[in-house]
Amino acid sequence: MRVMLRVAYDGTNYCGWQLQPNAVTIEGVLNQQLTALLMQEIHVIGTSRTDAGVHALGNVAVFDMDERVCRIPPEKIAPALNAGLPDDIVVQESMRVFDDFHPRKCVSRKTYEYHILSRKAPLPLMRFDSHYTWNTFDVSKMQRAADLLVGEHDFKGFCSIRTSAQTTVRTIYSITVEEQPLAVGGSLITIRVTGSGFLYNMVRIIAGTLMEAGMDKRSTETIKRAVQTGERTLAGPTAPARGLTLAEIRFEEAIG
Amino acid sequence: MRVMLRVAYDGTNYCGWQLQPNAVTIEGVLNQQLTALLMQEIHVIGTSRTDAGVHALGNVAVFDMDERVCRIPPEKIAPALNAGLPDDIVVQESMRVFDDFHPRKCVSRKTYEYHILSRKAPLPLMRFDSHYTWNTFDVSKMQRAADLLVGEHDFKGFCSIRTSAQTTVRTIYSITVEEQPLAVGGSLITIRVTGSGFLYNMVRIIAGTLMEAGMDKRSTETIKRAVQTGERTLAGPTAPARGLTLAEIRFEEAIG
Repeated sequence: MRVMLRVAYDGTNYCGWQLQPNAVTIEGVLNQQLTALLMQEIHVIGTSRTDAGVHALGNVAVFDMDERVCRIPPEKIAPALNAGLPDDIVVQESMRVFDDFHPRKCVSRKTYEYHILSRKAPLPLMRFDSHYTWNTFDVSKMQRAADLLVGEHDFKGFCSIRTSAQTTVRTIYSITVEEQPLAVGGSLITIRVTGSGFLYNMVRIIAGTLMEAGMDKRSTETIKRAVQTGERTLAGPTAPARGLTLAEIRFEEAIG
Repeated sequence: MRVMLRVAYDGTNYCGWQLQPNAVTIEGVLNQQLTALLMQEIHVIGTSRTDAGVHALGNVAVFDMDERVCRIPPEKIAPALNAGLPDDIVVQESMRVFDDFHPRKCVSRKTYEYHILSRKAPLPLMRFDSHYTWNTFDVSKMQRAADLLVGEHDFKGFCSIRTSAQTTVRTIYSITVEEQPLAVGGSLITIRVTGSGFLYNMVRIIAGTLMEAGMDKRSTETIKRAVQTGERTLAGPTAPARGLTLAEIRFEEAIG
C-alpha cells in the first residue's frame, strides 16, 4: 500500500530534507519513526528536497508499506507518528494514494514564501522564519522585477552551480510581493512564488534578486539579461535559508 | 542619568521577567549585560513582570547609570547591548528619560495579545508563540463574553490566588477577538486586551474564560457572576503562557 504524508516542519535544526549519513535530516527522522511505528523498514520519497534551514507547511512524502505487517488505517498514521516526532516536525495528514503515484513525476504546482522582516531591530519571535534586515525596500520595484521572471524561462542564472538538473528551463506561474506594516514598527515583506518546479537555490536567488531590485541595487535591465543569458552573476545573491518556507504543493491529477 | 529600554523577547526559555536567585530571567540577563557594558552595577526596574514563558514585543525597563563611569550616549546602549544579548532578547530602543520617571508608578495603557491556533494539527513554526488546540470556537460568543469584562471592575475572580496586589480593581479599556483563517487550514484567533494594568495571571484567565465561552462551556451568566462575586471558580482556567505576548506599553504622560 502506498501512503502519502503532508509534513510541516521548522527546518532550523535540520540539515535539509534529504537523507545524509552523518546529519539529522527530515527524511532521516521520518524514515526512523515510520520504521519503528510500522515495524518494517520504510524509505520515504519527498517531493521537494528543501535545503538546510528551510521550512515547510506542507511538503509531501510517499512510502510503501506492507499492511500485513502492521494493520494501521492509513489516516491514523499521522497522529500515531506525531506522538513520536519532535515538536519541530508535525505530520498534517496521511492518506492512501494510488500505487503508481510518484510525487516527483506527477505534475504539481509548488508555492514558496520568502519572509523579510524590515525594521530597525530584529523581533525575537520572528527570528526562525524570516530574514531580518535593517534595509527598507520599494515593494513596487520588487514586484516589477518579479514580473520579469514569470513564465517559462531558462533559469540557469538563478540556480546554484551545484545543480544537477538535466534542464534549467522552468515555469513560474506567479510571483507576488506584499508588504504588511507591523504595529511595532517596520514591516514584513512576503514574496510568494508559484511554479511547476524549482532548481537548486532558485527561490532564494529570486528573493535575493528582488531584494536588490527593491533597494535600487540591481536594475530591471540587469535582471532581464540574467534571464536571457543565464549568467549567474547578473542575478542577486542567495538569500538566507531561514526566510524560506515551502507553503504548498498541489498535484494536477488525482492521486488516490 | 535614568535610561529607558524597550525590550522584545521570546519568553520560551526564561523563568519570566523577575529576578530569581537560581533561574534565568529576562531581568537577570539584562542586569548582567548592562553591568558588563556600562562597567557599573545596574539594576533595571521592569514595567510588566511577565510570567515564565510569556513573550513581549515591547516591555519597558528603566535603570540609573553614572555617566561619568561610562560615557555612552543613551541611544547607543540598545545596539551595544544587543551585540552581547542572546537571540531571544532584543532591545528595540534606548533613551534618556526624566530622573523621576518610574514605569510602574506612571499611568500607562498595556496591550496584551493571546494567540490561539485552532486546527487539526499543530504548525511547528507557530509552536513558540501560540496556544495550539484542536477545538474550534465561536468567535462572536467570545467577543460577547469579552464585552462583559470591559470597564472598571473588581477582577478578584480573574487572578491567581497567589496575587499580592492591594486592590483587585482594574480597568480594561478594550478587548477584541479576531479570527484569521489560514491558507493551510484552520485559523489563528487573537484576543487583544488593553487595560491600565493587570493582576497576576489575569490576561491568561481572561483568555481561558473566553475560550470556554467560545466552546459553549461557560455561559455569559456565569462570567457575569464571576465579575460580580469575585469567585475564581466561576471564571475559566488559566490559558498556557506560550500563547501570551505583551504587545505594547504606552505612558499617558511625557517620560523624557
